This record gives sequence, C-alpha cells and structure tokens, in this order.
Amino acid sequence: MTPYKELSREQLQAMKADLEKQFEEVKAKGLNLDMSRGKPSKKQLELAMDMLEELKSTDKLKCETGIDCRNYGLLDGIPEARRLLGAMTEVSADQIVIFGNSSLNVMFDTVSRSMTHGVCGSTPWCKLDKVKFLCPSPGYDRHFKITEYFGIEMVTVPMTPAGPDMDMIEELVSSDPAIKGVWCVPKYSNPQGITYSEETVKRFARLKPAAEDFRIFWDNAYCIHHLYEEQDFLLEILEECEKAGNPDLAYKFISTSKVSFPGSGIAAVASSPRNLADFRKHMAIQTIGHDKINQLRHVRFFKDIEGMHEHMRKHAEILRPKFEAVENTLEKEIGGAGIGTWTTPKGGYFISFDSMEGCAKDIVAKAAEAGVKMTEAGATFPYGIDPYDSNIRIAPSFPTPEELQLATEIFVLSVKLVSIDKLLAE
Amino acid sequence: MTPYKELSREQLQAMKADLEKQFEEVKAKGLNLDMSRGKPSKKQLELAMDMLEELKSTDKLKCETGIDCRNYGLLDGIPEARRLLGAMTEVSADQIVIFGNSSLNVMFDTVSRSMTHGVCGSTPWCKLDKVKFLCPSPGYDRHFKITEYFGIEMVTVPMTPAGPDMDMIEELVSSDPAIKGVWCVPKYSNPQGITYSEETVKRFARLKPAAEDFRIFWDNAYCIHHLYEEQDFLLEILEECEKAGNPDLAYKFISTSKVSFPGSGIAAVASSPRNLADFRKHMAIQTIGHDKINQLRHVRFFKDIEGMHEHMRKHAEILRPKFEAVENTLEKEIGGAGIGTWTTPKGGYFISFDSMEGCAKDIVAKAAEAGVKMTEAGATFPYGIDPYDSNIRIAPSFPTPEELQLATEIFVLSVKLVSIDKLLAE
Repeated sequence: MTPYKELSREQLQAMKADLEKQFEEVKAKGLNLDMSRGKPSKKQLELAMDMLEELKSTDKLKCETGIDCRNYGLLDGIPEARRLLGAMTEVSADQIVIFGNSSLNVMFDTVSRSMTHGVCGSTPWCKLDKVKFLCPSPGYDRHFKITEYFGIEMVTVPMTPAGPDMDMIEELVSSDPAIKGVWCVPKYSNPQGITYSEETVKRFARLKPAAEDFRIFWDNAYCIHHLYEEQDFLLEILEECEKAGNPDLAYKFISTSKVSFPGSGIAAVASSPRNLADFRKHMAIQTIGHDKINQLRHVRFFKDIEGMHEHMRKHAEILRPKFEAVENTLEKEIGGAGIGTWTTPKGGYFISFDSMEGCAKDIVAKAAEAGVKMTEAGATFPYGIDPYDSNIRIAPSFPTPEELQLATEIFVLSVKLVSIDKLLAE
Repeated sequence: MTPYKELSREQLQAMKADLEKQFEEVKAKGLNLDMSRGKPSKKQLELAMDMLEELKSTDKLKCETGIDCRNYGLLDGIPEARRLLGAMTEVSADQIVIFGNSSLNVMFDTVSRSMTHGVCGSTPWCKLDKVKFLCPSPGYDRHFKITEYFGIEMVTVPMTPAGPDMDMIEELVSSDPAIKGVWCVPKYSNPQGITYSEETVKRFARLKPAAEDFRIFWDNAYCIHHLYEEQDFLLEILEECEKAGNPDLAYKFISTSKVSFPGSGIAAVASSPRNLADFRKHMAIQTIGHDKINQLRHVRFFKDIEGMHEHMRKHAEILRPKFEAVENTLEKEIGGAGIGTWTTPKGGYFISFDSMEGCAKDIVAKAAEAGVKMTEAGATFPYGIDPYDSNIRIAPSFPTPEELQLATEIFVLSVKLVSIDKLLAE
C-alpha cells in the first residue's frame, strides 16, 4: 500500500469522497456497537455457569480447616482459595490474602489507607505537601482515576516494548521522596498487551526509592489470560524483590473477574509478611470478613490451577479470533498506509492503536458518529490527556464476531477519513 | 431473694465456699463455649441454604431492566435488589444504593471518604485539627473501632430506655462544629436491645448541627430482626429529616448478614439524593460494581419483603428460646439479688448485662476461666473503657441451646462469685 503521505492532494480528495460515501452508508444503519471496555462477551460468561450450581443446599460448606464458610470469620480467606489464587499469581498460600469481588477496589483502598494511615507506619500521605505516582502510559484509565481522585500528582513515564522506561523510573524514584508509587500492568499490559521483560522486572525489584513508603502497584490483572499456547513469560516480582533485599517493595493484585464473572469473582493481594500485616490491620477494622461462600464456589469449580488454565483456554478460543479479526482488518485496510500502528498482543484484553499525531480524538468522535463506541481518546494517559492525541484503546472482547467485524470496519473508515483530513490540512 | 448487700459477711463467705466448689466442678469439664459475638447459629444458617441453588446454569441472569448480572455495570445495584432492601428499611428503590457484603465496610468507607474528601464538598476531615463523634454507650464496639482507627475523638453519650440522652446530643451537636457524626443502632440496639422512641427520632431529625458536614450514622442493623410477633416500632428517620428541613442529615445502613448469610449477604445505604450522589462519586472510582449475581440470588430467594419477614420469623423461632433461656436463668439465679440488671429485648442479637460497679472485667475473666468466652468487658464503650466497669454484652445466638444453658450458668456463677468478693472487700 502506498503511504498516504505520498499521495497527491487530488488522490487524497478522491479517496475522501469515496470513503465519505461509504461512511454515510454505514452511518445510515444506525448501529450501536461497543469496543470501549474490557468486558467479557456473553459467550465467555456462559463458560462459568456451572459454578453457580457448585454449592448444594445439602452441602456442609466447611472449608478445609473445618470453618463454616457461611458464618463470620477467617479474615484472610479460606485456605483453599488462598492456595488457588496463590497458584494463579505464583506465590504460596501464606503470601496472599483474599478480598472481595474487585481488585480495583483493593487498589483504591490501598491508596486510601496510605492517605489516612501511611504505609507500614510512615506518615499518612494526606499530611504531606506533595505525593506523586509514576504512570507508565499508555496505561489503565481506572488506575489513573484513583490517583487523580486522591489529588496525587501523576508523572507520565513512556512505555517501551520491554515495559516502562526504566532509566526514567530509576532516576525519579531514587531522587524524589514525594514519589510514593508506580502503576504497573506487567503482563499483557492495558492497553498495549506488552509483557515486561526479565530485565525490566529485575530493575523494578532493585529500585532504591528515596521514599521508604514507595510501593510498586503490580496489577497482575492478566496473569493467566493468554490468547495462544505460546505465552509471554513474566518474572515473579515478589521473589525478585526478596532477592534484591527489597522484600516490601511490591503489592501484587489479582482477581478472577475475567476468569469467572466480572463483578462476582474474587480478588486478592500477594505481598511480603510486613505488607500483608499492614493490609490486615486495616481490614480488621473495615470488615468482619469477605464472601467465603463465593470463595468456596470458585475453588469447587476450578479445583486447582490446572482447572483454571483449562478454563482460560476456553476463553482464549473465544477471544483469539476476535483479536485476529481486528488485526487482520487493520493490516488489510491500513497496513503500510502510514496512518496508524497497532499492537498484536499474545494475551490480555486490548489492542493499542496509535494514529498520526493529533488524530485520536477526531477518530473516536467519527466512529461514534456511526454508532461505534471506543474508549475515550486520552483515557490511557494521566488526567485523560494524551500529549500526542494519538493513542486509542481497542477492546475486542464484548461484541459478537459479526458486530466486531462491522465495528472494526467503521473504525478503519474513521481512521482513514480523519487522517486524510489531517494530511489535507497540512 | 435477699439482696446480697443485706447478707452478713458469714453468709456471703458460706455462699462463696459453695459457689467456688460448683465453679471448680464446671471448670474441670474443660468447656469451650462462645457468647462473645452476634453470630447466627448453624441452625439459622440452614434456613437460607436453598438460596445457594436459586440460580441455575441455564438461567439468563438478567435483571428486570435487561442488564446481564454476570457482567460489569450497574453501580447502584440491580433494581429488584434496591426495591427489596428499600422495603426492608422502609424507603423506595431510588433512595437506596446496594453495596458489597458488609454494611460495616460501607460505614468504614464512609468515614474514610469523609477523612480524605469531606462530606458533600466540605473540607476533608483529615485537614481539620479535631474531629469528634458522639458515641451513645453502651454501643457497638466495631463502630467505635472505626472512629478510633481514624483518630476521631469519641464522646460518650449515655443511653436511656428511649435511646441516647438527647438533651446532651442537642447541646453538643449545636454548639461544637468539631462534632461530625453520631453512631446509632436505633432499633433493638447493640447491646441493649433498645428501640429509640418516636420523640428521640424526631429530636434527631430536628438537630441543628454547628457543622454542615455532621451526619447521623443510622445503623439499622436489626430493622426486621424481631423475636416476637409483638414488635418495637421505629420511626423512619429519613422522612423525619426531610420534614424537619434537614434532608441530608442521616445515612441509613442495612445488610442481610443476619438474614441470609453473614459475610455472603448484601449491604445497602439509604439517604437523600445529595448524599447518595456523594457516595456514588466515590464508588465510581473505587469499583466497577458490586456482586450483582449475589443480589439476584437474594431477590430470587426472598422474592419480596413478605418473603423476608416470613424468613425472619424462622430465625425468631430459633433465637427466641435462647434469649428466654438466658433471661430465665438470670431471673431465677440472681433476680432481686441486687448484683446485676439486664435487658429483655424484643429483637436484635444481644442482652445487655450490668453488674455492680467495678465487676465486669472480673466477671468476664472468671467466665473465661471456665471456658466461656464473653465479649471483652469495656468493648461496648469508646476506647474499650467502661467508666463503671459494669457492662457486659451477652450474645445468645451462636451456641446450641444446651451449650447456652451451660454457658449462662457459668456466667451466673461468675457474677455471683465476683460480686461476693466485691462486697466482702468493701
């Protein structure tokens, strides 16, 4: 394909006229398609339906230590759930505590706790003049919303194919005691699908923070969410931190939201004994305990980590063709056109698209005009401001394959039209 | 029965010798009985077991507005759950928001939110020099733990048979802008089982706080938890606040922890539109949504408020004889002895016992010696300090009837022994 930049104004104008015609046709259909959020599809939700019938009314519902899961108690979660989710994130059962239905909620509460009570006895962040977080970007909008909500200053760190720019992170973390945390989605990152390299993980583990209450918020959201048999490999961060003499450096968050049911899964935190004691101290005041019946339901259904991997292969069967459909359409329609690049991840929930500079907002608006909802442009950056206005997160999971094909075509039309306008205006 | 105070030293010493013998006998049994927490018994938990099988793997699991309960979304909870829990606490579905599994967690988060973000736009409490809460006492230890955890100064307010001392509350709330809240369990209060009178509720609703961000934390934990057909009546606080021109004055918290399953129920907050908007603003950052499948499970099982009342009558059948067994033993063994008074509530989970001054800690320790665990003495007061060292919370729900009988007898023995020692020491 000839790069658009090499086309004459006349050629571009002719293309534009043709594309506009196509766009009006598709717009007339009055579609309502959603590629905005990482929501599992109906077909994926069906995979875990048997879980709802796991617990029988005649069951005893005792966990393996004999405690009745139906009653109060057992703040850390039932042992078998700690073992299962521990295996999911490669730690032992005593390194993990089970929480409620949402890891985002646990991350929020962790920041909130640090604001009011500090970290392992440090000064509460709300008493400090300035608190900063590093935000590798593009990243997860809901992470950035949390730090923004608490008035924490966000510092954008560029992403590379091996993870965040570690030179910058090392420099900032070691020199600025106001920097208290960094948001990471280390495996199949949101939105790029990048997995941090071994070197990146090791450099994270070896950080020498100026602030004793600096922590890595390691959101291992997609730890077992592979699309292919050939998987990315992520080094286990807690062990690396331990080896590096930094045992308390990282919090590792996971959940089964995209394994069992979004909103009805279970979340967990893995960390050092000292950090977990800090979590427990707070939790012992905050609640009498989380939903142990749901923990038991999960363990009965998945049985063990092998059962979970088996289940994730079924998710991959549904998701993989969707990712490939988007990637193929992009390649076919704009491959080599020089108006956009995109990632081809081996797992996770997103494809990250980068348009020419200054086009993302217009592309998202254009697609919306024809009934396709994308994640808001800019959302993948702190404060919702993409300095280049080029990144767009594509979430292929929720639509049916037919809807997805149509939505991608509309997206591509929008990219082409906005890019041509941009080139014509230059 | 002759009051112990009127007995001679010789009589008391003779009684003591006999009681000590009895105590040693029972101690030798090596019992392990628990009257410390308001935990439902195994038999009560059995009542809701069919709920676990309500949802079938072939069900569609859509709520009445057609949204799939298995997926993300619907922050406020499903409409049918809002209607059911609204009916439970006498408000309409649009006045209530459904949360996770624990109302305590929601109260904690509400205090936490006020610390970091203020109340409806007020100055965050963490930025103020002093924040105070009024604590009608004896009260619920877990309430007091929350305010203590956040460094909020707690002011004890005495309880009367009609509720907290309203003269004191009116005086303090109207004069001291540092007072930001009051903890209330208005129906079948924890631990006394007192229901606030109509006059008390009206006086709460008419408060004229010096602080605009003062709120009543109305923990309606036992709203439908009656022991008898003849029930206490509690005036609906939100309507009274509205009538009094104070629409934003109160937060009303409820949960189904002692209706369905502790830890696996659903919690909710009812309040004014302005207050609910404040909750939602926070929640929209904190989570993507609560467990809607569990909400649906509850609605399918109870169907409507009538189904819930019917279910609570089954709880009452199990609980009532336990309360009466404790009350009868107390009456038979120490009625008229002048060494203790106790409440005879018509609902809730507790009997409140008041010993002679300065005896509660020793009684609880004595009972523990013989294997009976009571709530820690002092726990029902702020900072765990009962100024008279006399209040003990009795939780009759968890033990079997046989265990309860034995535990009560040991408790009574402990009361007698400690009281005699006290009288002999005078």
